[in-house]
Amino acid sequence: MNCFGIKFRITTFGESHANAIGCIIDGVPAGLEIDENYIQNEVDKRRPGLTKFATQRKENDKVQILSGVFNNLSTGAPIALLIFNENQKSSDYEDIKSLFRPSHADFTYFKKYAIRDYRGGGRSSARETAARVAAGAIAKKLLEKFNIHVKSGIFAIGGIEAEDLDFEYANGSEIFVLDKLQEDVQKKVILEAKKDGDSVGGCVFVKVTNIPIGLGEPLYEKLDAMLAAALMGINGVKAVEIGEGVNASKLRGSQNNDQMNKNGFMSNHAGGILGGISTGMDIDLKVHFKPTPSIFSEQQTQNEQNESVKFSLKGRHDPCIAIRGSVVANAMVSLVIADMLLLNASSTLENLKKIYDK
Amino acid sequence: MNCFGIKFRITTFGESHANAIGCIIDGVPAGLEIDENYIQNEVDKRRPGLTKFATQRKENDKVQILSGVFNNLSTGAPIALLIFNENQKSSDYEDIKSLFRPSHADFTYFKKYAIRDYRGGGRSSARETAARVAAGAIAKKLLEKFNIHVKSGIFAIGGIEAEDLDFEYANGSEIFVLDKLQEDVQKKVILEAKKDGDSVGGCVFVKVTNIPIGLGEPLYEKLDAMLAAALMGINGVKAVEIGEGVNASKLRGSQNNDQMNKNGFMSNHAGGILGGISTGMDIDLKVHFKPTPSIFSEQQTQNEQNESVKFSLKGRHDPCIAIRGSVVANAMVSLVIADMLLLNASSTLENLKKIYDK
Amino acid sequence: MNCFGIKFRITTFGESHANAIGCIIDGVPAGLEIDENYIQNEVDKRRPGLTKFATQRKENDKVQILSGVFNNLSTGAPIALLIFNENQKSSDYEDIKSLFRPSHADFTYFKKYAIRDYRGGGRSSARETAARVAAGAIAKKLLEKFNIHVKSGIFAIGGIEAEDLDFEYANGSEIFVLDKLQEDVQKKVILEAKKDGDSVGGCVFVKVTNIPIGLGEPLYEKLDAMLAAALMGINGVKAVEIGEGVNASKLRGSQNNDQMNKNGFMSNHAGGILGGISTGMDIDLKVHFKPTPSIFSEQQTQNEQNESVKFSLKGRHDPCIAIRGSVVANAMVSLVIADMLLLNASSTLENLKKIYDK
Amino acid sequence: MNCFGIKFRITTFGESHANAIGCIIDGVPAGLEIDENYIQNEVDKRRPGLTKFATQRKENDKVQILSGVFNNLSTGAPIALLIFNENQKSSDYEDIKSLFRPSHADFTYFKKYAIRDYRGGGRSSARETAARVAAGAIAKKLLEKFNIHVKSGIFAIGGIEAEDLDFEYANGSEIFVLDKLQEDVQKKVILEAKKDGDSVGGCVFVKVTNIPIGLGEPLYEKLDAMLAAALMGINGVKAVEIGEGVNASKLRGSQNNDQMNKNGFMSNHAGGILGGISTGMDIDLKVHFKPTPSIFSEQQTQNEQNESVKFSLKGRHDPCIAIRGSVVANAMVSLVIADMLLLNASSTLENLKKIYDK
Repeated sequence: MNCFGIKFRITTFGESHANAIGCIIDGVPAGLEIDENYIQNEVDKRRPGLTKFATQRKENDKVQILSGVFNNLSTGAPIALLIFNENQKSSDYEDIKSLFRPSHADFTYFKKYAIRDYRGGGRSSARETAARVAAGAIAKKLLEKFNIHVKSGIFAIGGIEAEDLDFEYANGSEIFVLDKLQEDVQKKVILEAKKDGDSVGGCVFVKVTNIPIGLGEPLYEKLDAMLAAALMGINGVKAVEIGEGVNASKLRGSQNNDQMNKNGFMSNHAGGILGGISTGMDIDLKVHFKPTPSIFSEQQTQNEQNESVKFSLKGRHDPCIAIRGSVVANAMVSLVIADMLLLNASSTLENLKKIYDK
Repeated sequence: MNCFGIKFRITTFGESHANAIGCIIDGVPAGLEIDENYIQNEVDKRRPGLTKFATQRKENDKVQILSGVFNNLSTGAPIALLIFNENQKSSDYEDIKSLFRPSHADFTYFKKYAIRDYRGGGRSSARETAARVAAGAIAKKLLEKFNIHVKSGIFAIGGIEAEDLDFEYANGSEIFVLDKLQEDVQKKVILEAKKDGDSVGGCVFVKVTNIPIGLGEPLYEKLDAMLAAALMGINGVKAVEIGEGVNASKLRGSQNNDQMNKNGFMSNHAGGILGGISTGMDIDLKVHFKPTPSIFSEQQTQNEQNESVKFSLKGRHDPCIAIRGSVVANAMVSLVIADMLLLNASSTLENLKKIYDK
Repeated sequence: MNCFGIKFRITTFGESHANAIGCIIDGVPAGLEIDENYIQNEVDKRRPGLTKFATQRKENDKVQILSGVFNNLSTGAPIALLIFNENQKSSDYEDIKSLFRPSHADFTYFKKYAIRDYRGGGRSSARETAARVAAGAIAKKLLEKFNIHVKSGIFAIGGIEAEDLDFEYANGSEIFVLDKLQEDVQKKVILEAKKDGDSVGGCVFVKVTNIPIGLGEPLYEKLDAMLAAALMGINGVKAVEIGEGVNASKLRGSQNNDQMNKNGFMSNHAGGILGGISTGMDIDLKVHFKPTPSIFSEQQTQNEQNESVKFSLKGRHDPCIAIRGSVVANAMVSLVIADMLLLNASSTLENLKKIYDK
Repeated sequence: MNCFGIKFRITTFGESHANAIGCIIDGVPAGLEIDENYIQNEVDKRRPGLTKFATQRKENDKVQILSGVFNNLSTGAPIALLIFNENQKSSDYEDIKSLFRPSHADFTYFKKYAIRDYRGGGRSSARETAARVAAGAIAKKLLEKFNIHVKSGIFAIGGIEAEDLDFEYANGSEIFVLDKLQEDVQKKVILEAKKDGDSVGGCVFVKVTNIPIGLGEPLYEKLDAMLAAALMGINGVKAVEIGEGVNASKLRGSQNNDQMNKNGFMSNHAGGILGGISTGMDIDLKVHFKPTPSIFSEQQTQNEQNESVKFSLKGRHDPCIAIRGSVVANAMVSLVIADMLLLNASSTLENLKKIYDK
């Protein structure tokens, strides 16, 4: 099932080597400026082929707006975005079409559907996330109308962690690092893995600032639950932390509690969410990406005929998916917050009166 | 919004001090034995008042089946389960009814809804999770028909981790510890926190064994995404890890990849999920609970009138919510797997033919 | 699946002879007065045992509010309503437990689920509609806050149609007739059918007044589509008409078009809906109920063993389900309008600004 | 909201004068042949410009498959279908861009969204239904695998009704008439309306044959309720009847009941549905379309500035939308049945065992 969100909802389609990928964004409030350049700019951030830290595949990833916009404004109709696939080398996959690349989804797709589009991973390819980023760009524009900002960057590469979170800096960094003092060593970790025909994991930090108090729909569309789903569903993510995260399980209440005074919260161990609802403090998220499963050393695997085989992968691959993953994480968080913004609109009779009373 | 799941779906209701809590379970396939004792037994595992490691509130938590069962079999109609609330001491909350307990949901509920049922946390109380556990018991029974088992226990308390995972042992342990060698020290950590009027965090491990290959509905109801939502939505959870989890972000691909041979996977760093679909290997999950926010030392906070106030909490509280949380995590995982089992039934034309061809 | 609605959502449970029936109402905006007497009063309108025009079964149908209300106000938490079943005579069904009553759902439930609760029709019993009416009462209260009124009554019995629509009069009529001039003959039609051990069909008219312009979520949650689903889903309904209805298919555009001037619409053939969105004119609906399938003459049928059998029904049955059906239709329409009211809250950026801008 | 269906789900996008219209079809079981020619053929049935009974707009309506298909088989991934818009004459709408065409959705879209794409009705244009027909073609192919057939044709034009239902004949008829004896007079009714610059309403009959017993998900996704929503949501539909339909409300139970014997049902007043579940008998549906609101005589209306205006419509319009509507109705019914086929797959434990037991 390929929908995400309830009121601000995206539906995506497309495989790595299909004709196109794209999405339909439903529930965009009418009257929002839809800026094609802004969308393109966001999509370009995750576009491959730009630096030596990413795959050398070159995709233009040109986004077309097919519907839902009139005079540059959203009309309330669904907005369809389309990206035609280019520069696919299906021949890269000829050698491996009947075997299951380790730690890819080849095996599970084949077993679930009894058929798989082996070219570039088919539907399981991270290429689909370009559609998420395009949709996320519209969500971000909506959030900006309310001065809500979703920021992200690289927190750690191969365990080398940032000590400072500078989202401005990350925006300008080739690999979106948050801590410029760690940039060199983090880059080195990636390039060494790449040189060895290997890959390396990384951790992305996402922060939401100026979020209204009250977003999140308990008990089963809690803000933290929806963020966890949105982030864990990104290709390669194996852990999600909110606020104090894993560390919270090691602390005492007296250490982890966020006391308050008349001015508000005195700390933010909660990461901006209590009871599944935003507190108004920053939302702080850590998203842990596994290393790219595509590595170049010889590996052992199984093929569709259930035989043991050895093989060596060819092709062009990211040595660290966390980097482009940070753009996707940002988009997914933006989509969740936008959805929650809309869902909360009818939370009180008072809100409804603001809209319907004349 | 108070529904969870798509085809195997629960809807819960109830507050800590309402007349009752309960749930409706929809989508249970007809013909499943519904065993009231089994449900009661599961609910009893998270029932308060049983040991010195949990709150001393005594609730009978007697589950009534209201509908959907005939001759002890599910009929396809929704199954409603009801637990009347007893032994509520609303007076415990008189002193604090206009202030926001730190790190509870008092503040966020009040700001979102402009009204809150302050008694025992109202809807945000972990008491609601009894309904999840009751529903989870029915999911577990369904899974057992296919020999799928969902196991859980305490992995760590206050950072003291298990080195062994013995789910049999956990079942018999007062605090569900997985590693009997750590039980004494883990208990001590809790009791010391309790003695200090404090609380402590903990980590729960959940394992699913013998899961069919192919469960999970990509791309937005991926198995890992749905598990993350289910677990992060439990009261007090701040991080969720799957398989190698946080550690995956520190590894190289050559370390983290699960190679295969003709017999299947040679390792399980993935924690049983690739591309959002089950591999057939064990699903391995770590769920990190923050320390109980209810502590007894004096704390500073804000009240509804926006003033700074100091207060000391009274009442009966769990020193470590992870313990009873392990029962809830087990139930939530069971509900997700049951939902995925049903959703996958129409994944191929071949499956449909098994059902409809005469 | 037993949910209805998207944002204002009900989930019902219960069978005719289960312990109870009831519902959970989710999405009620916080701050709405919840008046137990008002709910009870609505439920009493469809309660059996009151007149000679309805079944003589006596059910108290006492509604209990289990959750979601604090100080008589909705809190944003789900509101659970419970009605315990009483006065069930399961023995009435002993004779027919293995046969399929013609034009009841006995056959289809048995074939679908391979098990059925034969007592009183089980889940397929119209008794479940009491839960809908209880939920509808809360929707009606919400609508009244915006001066929206949902009115209903009997339009026709056995083809004898009203020529006047007097909803005030219907409220006071034993059988909710809209046209007092037709009341005697309509009653006579029912009593004659009853005397013959037979039953008769009828048509209900529902009118919504003062509805805001703009409700309805095109293209797949159009107001008319959602109303059609809500009404066609009521037990025994076989046709739904909006505005000119069936007659529209016989007219020319010049006859059916609703021209406008600066004061608004000059006619209302559309029945208040264009493009799936409310025009602000009255919503006009006709709901056609088949005659009660429970009749007392000898009938031929099949039993679970696939044999031909003849039988005569006993028990207590409504001679005309349209009468109590009019109360249910009113409730269902109220639920749809409430849902649309909430869903529309985020339709424009302007609406969101009213809520979130400080 | 622009999704329809639960497990077999379509999401559509596009406006009359946008770049394109299209849809994403989700939940198609893997392994189904996807035949581009078959889809094109279905879409061609509702294509404008073909006969003098339809608008003279010429659209090629060439359908492109963008994703979800590999080696001509569905892969389980979402199938995106795209139709670029051509031959749009936006200038046709220049004159009327600030006024509300009577009985069109101009007024309601403008009031709901405060902006509207006035060109060709924008999102409210029946052009969107081409996407439904394309999606419906895939549903039909799935149903054919189980020998389920969805047939349709014109039952009545301007009140002139068929006396015979010959679906074979309808397929070959220019206006899809079911009764060849009525064809001439039905055509004449249309052409006379057209000659007068007027339009006329009509009624479509849809029949589903060989449907499995047991489809329909009570109580809120009943088969009849879902069909009613699907059909009432088609542009211009004002009434939906199932089986005996409106007439059922005039009958006695002894006339309307479908008695049975060991061979099954002895009549089919129910139209193939009891308790919201298919009986295995034919599903019989009547769908009533209003006359096209686009007529050429002078009409009075309101403009965006709230003034009374008179105007005469120009352009190219169908004199009777029921004709092309019959193709859309067929598609919508096919989509509903496909969804129910999938949803029913997990209705019993027995069904699940067929899939998961080895």
